[in-house]
Amino acid sequence: MTSGDLLYSDNIVLGANQYGKAECRLVKVTRDSERHEIEDLSITSQLRGDFADVHLHGDNANCLPTDTQKNTVYAFARDGVGSPEEFLLRLGRHFTANFDAVSGGHWAAEQYEWQRISVDNEPHNHAFVRSGQETRTANVTVDGDNIWVISGLTDLVVLKSTGSEFHGFQRDPYTTLPDAHDRILATSVTAHWRYLSEKQDFNGMYAKVKSILLTTFANLHSLALQQTLFAMGKAVLEACPDIAEIKFSMPNKHHFNVDLGAFGLDNPNEVFFAADRPYGLIEATVQRESTRATPLAWTSVTGFC
Amino acid sequence: MTSGDLLYSDNIVLGANQYGKAECRLVKVTRDSERHEIEDLSITSQLRGDFADVHLHGDNANCLPTDTQKNTVYAFARDGVGSPEEFLLRLGRHFTANFDAVSGGHWAAEQYEWQRISVDNEPHNHAFVRSGQETRTANVTVDGDNIWVISGLTDLVVLKSTGSEFHGFQRDPYTTLPDAHDRILATSVTAHWRYLSEKQDFNGMYAKVKSILLTTFANLHSLALQQTLFAMGKAVLEACPDIAEIKFSMPNKHHFNVDLGAFGLDNPNEVFFAADRPYGLIEATVQRESTRATPLAWTSVTGFC
Amino acid sequence: MTSGDLLYSDNIVLGANQYGKAECRLVKVTRDSERHEIEDLSITSQLRGDFADVHLHGDNANCLPTDTQKNTVYAFARDGVGSPEEFLLRLGRHFTANFDAVSGGHWAAEQYEWQRISVDNEPHNHAFVRSGQETRTANVTVDGDNIWVISGLTDLVVLKSTGSEFHGFQRDPYTTLPDAHDRILATSVTAHWRYLSEKQDFNGMYAKVKSILLTTFANLHSLALQQTLFAMGKAVLEACPDIAEIKFSMPNKHHFNVDLGAFGLDNPNEVFFAADRPYGLIEATVQRESTRATPLAWTSVTGFC
Amino acid sequence: MTSGDLLYSDNIVLGANQYGKAECRLVKVTRDSERHEIEDLSITSQLRGDFADVHLHGDNANCLPTDTQKNTVYAFARDGVGSPEEFLLRLGRHFTANFDAVSGGHWAAEQYEWQRISVDNEPHNHAFVRSGQETRTANVTVDGDNIWVISGLTDLVVLKSTGSEFHGFQRDPYTTLPDAHDRILATSVTAHWRYLSEKQDFNGMYAKVKSILLTTFANLHSLALQQTLFAMGKAVLEACPDIAEIKFSMPNKHHFNVDLGAFGLDNPNEVFFAADRPYGLIEATVQRESTRATPLAWTSVTGFC
Repeated sequence: MTSGDLLYSDNIVLGANQYGKAECRLVKVTRDSERHEIEDLSITSQLRGDFADVHLHGDNANCLPTDTQKNTVYAFARDGVGSPEEFLLRLGRHFTANFDAVSGGHWAAEQYEWQRISVDNEPHNHAFVRSGQETRTANVTVDGDNIWVISGLTDLVVLKSTGSEFHGFQRDPYTTLPDAHDRILATSVTAHWRYLSEKQDFNGMYAKVKSILLTTFANLHSLALQQTLFAMGKAVLEACPDIAEIKFSMPNKHHFNVDLGAFGLDNPNEVFFAADRPYGLIEATVQRESTRATPLAWTSVTGFC
Repeated sequence: MTSGDLLYSDNIVLGANQYGKAECRLVKVTRDSERHEIEDLSITSQLRGDFADVHLHGDNANCLPTDTQKNTVYAFARDGVGSPEEFLLRLGRHFTANFDAVSGGHWAAEQYEWQRISVDNEPHNHAFVRSGQETRTANVTVDGDNIWVISGLTDLVVLKSTGSEFHGFQRDPYTTLPDAHDRILATSVTAHWRYLSEKQDFNGMYAKVKSILLTTFANLHSLALQQTLFAMGKAVLEACPDIAEIKFSMPNKHHFNVDLGAFGLDNPNEVFFAADRPYGLIEATVQRESTRATPLAWTSVTGFC
Repeated sequence: MTSGDLLYSDNIVLGANQYGKAECRLVKVTRDSERHEIEDLSITSQLRGDFADVHLHGDNANCLPTDTQKNTVYAFARDGVGSPEEFLLRLGRHFTANFDAVSGGHWAAEQYEWQRISVDNEPHNHAFVRSGQETRTANVTVDGDNIWVISGLTDLVVLKSTGSEFHGFQRDPYTTLPDAHDRILATSVTAHWRYLSEKQDFNGMYAKVKSILLTTFANLHSLALQQTLFAMGKAVLEACPDIAEIKFSMPNKHHFNVDLGAFGLDNPNEVFFAADRPYGLIEATVQRESTRATPLAWTSVTGFC
Repeated sequence: MTSGDLLYSDNIVLGANQYGKAECRLVKVTRDSERHEIEDLSITSQLRGDFADVHLHGDNANCLPTDTQKNTVYAFARDGVGSPEEFLLRLGRHFTANFDAVSGGHWAAEQYEWQRISVDNEPHNHAFVRSGQETRTANVTVDGDNIWVISGLTDLVVLKSTGSEFHGFQRDPYTTLPDAHDRILATSVTAHWRYLSEKQDFNGMYAKVKSILLTTFANLHSLALQQTLFAMGKAVLEACPDIAEIKFSMPNKHHFNVDLGAFGLDNPNEVFFAADRPYGLIEATVQRESTRATPLAWTSVTGFC
C-alpha cells in the first residue's frame, strides 16, 4: 500500500444517505355505507438523518427498521388515506417528530385508478374495474423545517394524428431527416409539479392539472414536441397559482409512415409503423421566474443520486 | 456410440412447425373526414405447410420471408383494418390461397384502445389518449379448409370489495387457511372465445362479451373464484349463440387483511396488503355440450407447443 | 329469448379445467457443511380432477385450497429439492395419491442459477452471484397412470457474427428483402424436451442438452434459422436416447447493417442496429419418427388452452 | 382571471432542459481477424444549451434533430467503440465543439456482456452467448469546460446464505420485527462511481471495481445492509485513487424463513420464501472527505429532475 492510498483511506466518509421500505402495496376499502370506496397505492418511506453508526459500525441503535416503516403505513391507513399527498405528509411528520435521529426523509406514492363497473347503466356499489390509464404519483420531502410536496403522473399516453410539423431544424453532415409538414405526434407524459405550500385540495388539483395537460396537447398546433411541452407547462402554471414549477419527461414515440411505393400503393399518412427504440426524449422544467431552486425537493423524485 | 443410438438417429424427423413475423406494430389512421379514426395493433403472422426442406437442408425455395409477411401486413392495412379478426382472416386467406407450400397458419393480433381527448366537453377530432384498460386479442387459424376465429381479451383487472366468500373446502395436514366469509375478490381476466363461424360483427360482439363478463363478475355473490369464472362463461354462451366455447385464465390476486392487533387497532376488512406472488390460478373452459374439440384452433392462442 | 337460446343454455358445461398456486418463490439452502448449496425456484402447482361442483355450485368440498398447495411446496422442500423435475414428481405423486378428487395435474418450475463468488480465486462457501443467463424450466404432467416429464430452458440468448446466410427464398410482389450472404444470426432459445421415462439424472441431462444446443448453434454454417433449429434438435436426440422429442421457439433477433453511405462511410458488416420489434419467429418440433403424440403432456407447458 | 394570475403568467420561463435520442441499440463487430469481437450497447444522447426558441416559439433553427444524434452514434461506431466511457466522451466533445447552441449535454450507455461459446473446450471465434449477469453503465456529462465521467453497474444480484445479522435496532409501538442472528442477505447492486479525471483505463477499472464489490460483499460479516454498503464503497475508494465517490442503491431482497411448525417440521434456516414487494431500500454515497459536490454530474444518472 502506498502512502497515497493511506492518505485516501483515512478520510473516506459517508455522504448523503436514506433508507426505508419501498413499494408497500396498500388497498384501502372505505365501507361506511353500501357504496364502498377503494384506494390502491404503492407507498415508499425513506428516512434521512443521523445514521452514520449503522453504516460505519453496524450499530443499529438509531435505526428504525424498514419493517416498522411498513407497519406504520398499514396502521395509519386504518384512519383513511384521503389523498396520497396528505397520507405521505402524515407519515413524514410522524417519523420526523418522533425519532431524534430522523431529520428528514422522502415519502413517495403511486396511486392506481379504479372505476365502478356499470351494471344496467348504474355504477356498482362494490365492484370495480382498473382504469389502467396513467399512474398518479406523489412525493413528499422533509428536510428539517422544510416540507416540499410534488404531485405528478406517469404513462399518460397521448397521440395526435395530425396538427404536428417538424422542419427548419439545424442540419449537419449526419442529418438525413426530411422536413415533416404533417406527422403523428405521440408521447407518454411524465410530469411532476411542485406546490408552493402543503395546504391544497390535492385530489381536485390533480384532476385539474391532468385536464389542462390533455387539453393543451390536443389544442396546440405543434412545430416541435418541445413547444408542446412548454405550452402544457405554461398552461398549468397560468391556471394554478399554487404551483411553482413543473418538470416533464416526454419521449417522442415515433410513428413512421410506411413506404408502400414498392407495392404500387400511396400512403397519405394512413399506415404507420410504431417504433419502440430508439426514441426521442424531451425533458424540461417550466417554472415561474421568481422560483428559487429547491434541489432537495427533487432528489428522489426520479432517482436517488 | 451404441447401436441404439444409431437406430434412433436414423429416424429423427421434423414435427409440427410454423414460422413468420411477430409483433408488427401497426397504427392505421382513417382520415376520410376531419374526424380521424385510429386503430392500433400488434400483428403476428405464422405460416404452416411444406417447409421440410428449409429445416433439413437450408433450401429456402418454399420459404416466403418473414420480412414479406410483415410487408403484406402494412400493404393490406392501406385498405383499412375494420376489425382485428377480419384483418387476420384477410391475411390468412391471402397466404393460403397464393402459395402452394402454405397449407395453413396462425395469425394473431393485439389491439389497444384509444379514447378521444375531451376538450370543452367535446371529443376532439384528432387527439387521443390511450385507454390502458384491457388488451383486445384475436386469433385466426387456418388448416386446409378449416378456419377458426377466436376473439379475446387480457389484463381486464377487476375487484369486488365484498360479496365473496371461501369456506367449506377440503382440509389436510398442510391446510392452515381459515374460512373466509367476506373477502376481497380480485383477478385479471384473460378470456378467449371461439366463434362457430367467421361471419360475425366482431366489434359488436367484443363489446357485448366484455360487458357480460364485467356485469356477471359484479353481480354474482361468489363462493369461489371457480364459480365466478363458470358463471361468466355461462352468461356469455347464453347470450351469444354464435360462440361455441370460452376459455379463461384467472389469477386470484390475493388481498390479505393486515393484522393491526399489535398496534391496538381492529381491521374490519378495510386495510389490505395486495400481494404479488404466489397467486392462485384458476383456468377452465366453458362450452356447449355439443361442441367437438378443435385442438388445432387453440394450439397457438396461448403458446405453441 | 328465442327457443334457440334456450336450447343452448340448457347444455352449457364445464370443459377442461385446473387450479392451483402459481409462482411459489422457494429458496432452499443446504447447510450440511460450511459449504452451503442454494437452489432458487419458482414453483406452480395445478390440480385436475372432479371439480365440477365448485365451478357449478360454489361447493368447495373437493377443493384443496391453493394455499394448501403452496404450504405443501414449502413443507416438502424441508427434505431437499434435488432437481426441479424430481421435486415436481414428488408433488404430483402426493396430490394424485392422496385426494380422491384429484386425477391429475400439472406442476411446473423455473430454476435460477447462482455461481459462487470468487474470493482470491477461491469459490466462496456461502456467498453467491446470480448467473442471469438462461432460466431452466421443468414441467410434470400427471393424467391418471400417465406421467410425463418435460425439461427445458428459456432466454438462452446466442449470436453468431458470421457463418449465416439467407437467400434463394420465395419471392412475391410484397418481397423487398435482398439476399444475405453474410449476416448476424441471433436468437433467444426456448426449448422443451420430453423424456421417455421419469427415471433420469435430470441435472446431468440438463447440462448435456444445454451444451449440445450451444455447440450446434456455434458450429453449423447456417442457411436459415430453421436449419439451425433442426440441427440443434437432431443433435440432442442423437446424443440422448431417453429424449423423445424437443420443441423450440426461436425469435430471429434482427441485427440490421446500418447504411453509412450518406456519411461517406462503408460498413463491411461492422455496425448494426439491433431491432426490438417486429422479429422473425421460428417454431418447430424435432422428434423421433416412432414418437406418438402426447398432447396432454404439452397442454400447460407454454400456456393453458 | 385575477391580477395575481396575470402577474404569474407574465413570467413563466423555461428552466433546465435537454433533448436527444434515447436507447440507440448498437452492436459493433470487430472483424480484423477470424476471432471476432462484439460490443453490444444502448446509447442515449441529450443536448443542453440555447434551446429557448424551440420551446417558446417552435423555432427549430438551433435544434439538431434527435435523428441526427442517432446517426452520429452509428457513424462514429464505424471507428470502434473501445469502452462505453470513451465512446460517450467522443460524442460529447463532438456535439459541444461543433454547434454554437450546444453548451453541454449528457451521454449515457448500457453495455451487455457476451461470452464466447465453448466448443470442445475452446472459445469459439464468432459464436457468443449473452452473459446476462449485471448491466454495465456509463454516463458522461459536459457543462461548458467541465467534463464528468461516471461508470457503474446495475442488477448485480448477490446473496449470502449466512454471515448476516440484524438486531439491536430502535423499537417503537409499530415495531414487530424480531432480532435476527443468522439471516439470508440478498440485494441487487446498483452502483455509480465518479472518476476524478477522464483519463482512465475504463475497461480495466470496471473489472477491478466489480471484483472489489463482490469480494467485499462476500467477506464482510454483516450487521446491517448499510454496513455492507459502506464497506463496499470504502474498499473501492481505498483501492482506486482516481475515484472520487461512489453511490449505491441496494434493495434488501427479503428471504423469509418459512414457519413449518404447523406441519411438525423445524426449519433451521433451510427453507425460505423470496418476497417481491415491499422490500427494504438502502441508498448512500461513499466519498472522499475532500470531494466537492458536483450535482450537475449526477442530474441525469438516475433520472432527470
